[in-house]
Amino acid sequence: MSLFADSDLTCNDFLGGRRRLLQPRAGYRAGVDPVLLAASVPATCSHTVLELGCGAGAAILCLMARVPDLQGVGVELQPAYADLARRNAAANDAQLQVVEADLCALPSELKQQQFDHVIANPPYYLTGAHSPASDTGRSVALGEDTPLEAWIDVAAKRLAPRGYLHMIQKADRLPDMLAACAGRLGSAEVLPLAARTGRPAELVILRARKGGRAAFRLLAPLILHAGDRHEKDGESYTKQVSAVLRDGAALTGFFNQ
Amino acid sequence: MSLFADSDLTCNDFLGGRRRLLQPRAGYRAGVDPVLLAASVPATCSHTVLELGCGAGAAILCLMARVPDLQGVGVELQPAYADLARRNAAANDAQLQVVEADLCALPSELKQQQFDHVIANPPYYLTGAHSPASDTGRSVALGEDTPLEAWIDVAAKRLAPRGYLHMIQKADRLPDMLAACAGRLGSAEVLPLAARTGRPAELVILRARKGGRAAFRLLAPLILHAGDRHEKDGESYTKQVSAVLRDGAALTGFFNQ
Repeated sequence: MSLFADSDLTCNDFLGGRRRLLQPRAGYRAGVDPVLLAASVPATCSHTVLELGCGAGAAILCLMARVPDLQGVGVELQPAYADLARRNAAANDAQLQVVEADLCALPSELKQQQFDHVIANPPYYLTGAHSPASDTGRSVALGEDTPLEAWIDVAAKRLAPRGYLHMIQKADRLPDMLAACAGRLGSAEVLPLAARTGRPAELVILRARKGGRAAFRLLAPLILHAGDRHEKDGESYTKQVSAVLRDGAALTGFFNQ
Repeated sequence: MSLFADSDLTCNDFLGGRRRLLQPRAGYRAGVDPVLLAASVPATCSHTVLELGCGAGAAILCLMARVPDLQGVGVELQPAYADLARRNAAANDAQLQVVEADLCALPSELKQQQFDHVIANPPYYLTGAHSPASDTGRSVALGEDTPLEAWIDVAAKRLAPRGYLHMIQKADRLPDMLAACAGRLGSAEVLPLAARTGRPAELVILRARKGGRAAFRLLAPLILHAGDRHEKDGESYTKQVSAVLRDGAALTGFFNQ
């Protein structure tokens, strides 16, 4: 796949306009997931952050919008998305380094670095389990050529001692995520994300810590929408989610501080 | 440990008096956990049910109170608790068969049987992780001489095809429970039990199915107490939990039907 032409791109506001990001019209498009992922990371000034599979950069650029002087590195397999992440970083005045690489074959320079935080929003669907997407880039971004275990293995290796992994993923992959943490990361906490009160979790954010020895914690769910059903007129995000999506707030009150 | 003397026992109401159960004054005492476990099981008339580690019989006797003509078998390692389960079954007119055995060395007759349901409320604490309980029976009932994986392995072996395991356990053991299900049981669903809205789960009820192939589901939490904090005067159970504990209702609206 060659680079995206400008006519294939849209420009969208994130964090109430604090970030304006180019995204492919027809490819993988960031929604609320990378924004919530970024909001869950307790990074502070001068921390180093690595995003595995950064796509057009939504998650790490949102995190860098909230936390000043963060040193960010994004790894992206697909040249067109890596190019987009670089353009988005430049247009948003973010000092993000984008490395075009397979996360299972990182360049040696990156392999010598350790990070305070690793974040990831791995593809949600197993390759072959669904009909192929019409666009190749979208197919790679949504498919799973790299097993979830490999994402967590690479994250664990790149984390500094006491460093945190935050990963957002479909809730039905939780058993695989926890299995992959075993022996690699500890102090796991799981934040369920549910569309509405009383509904099963659709997504989870997993936090795990390198060298962590605390007991596993299953947190109260973050409820995305207020009310019992979809209301057509206007947004229905809960206050807390709206504060994250519109005001760029951190997600507080769930994970251990 | 010899059998309990009557002076060592108390008699307590369960399900609003539908069950009156003898329990050791100083040993392992059933609380709401076995009652909620029983309420989660979608058993119907003439189903067969095996409880692993039945103690004095609270869980399976509560289930048999709700579902008529259930064929129940309880396995209990400790003679004093097995005796108590037999006495409780007789006093409550329940046709419960109690087998005194180590669940890892079931008698051959039991090994030839398969059950529609297996339920278990395994001990919550690892032996050695806490100071020893003063009473030996309590120590065995609260300790973990048999690893959680063995409980799930035995349950899977004793389940009929499409049969269900329901297990209640501390939430921090969820990763171990899910790991033990891998390759043995499928269609896992996890019901978090939280003391109050917004709190992390203290317990989970795991449902898994023999031969099940459905995706893992993380359900909305069951909230035990209404309000934000402990109120001293009177009970604070939520309506749904009160219906289970006081009226003997089934737990509905969470697990797949």
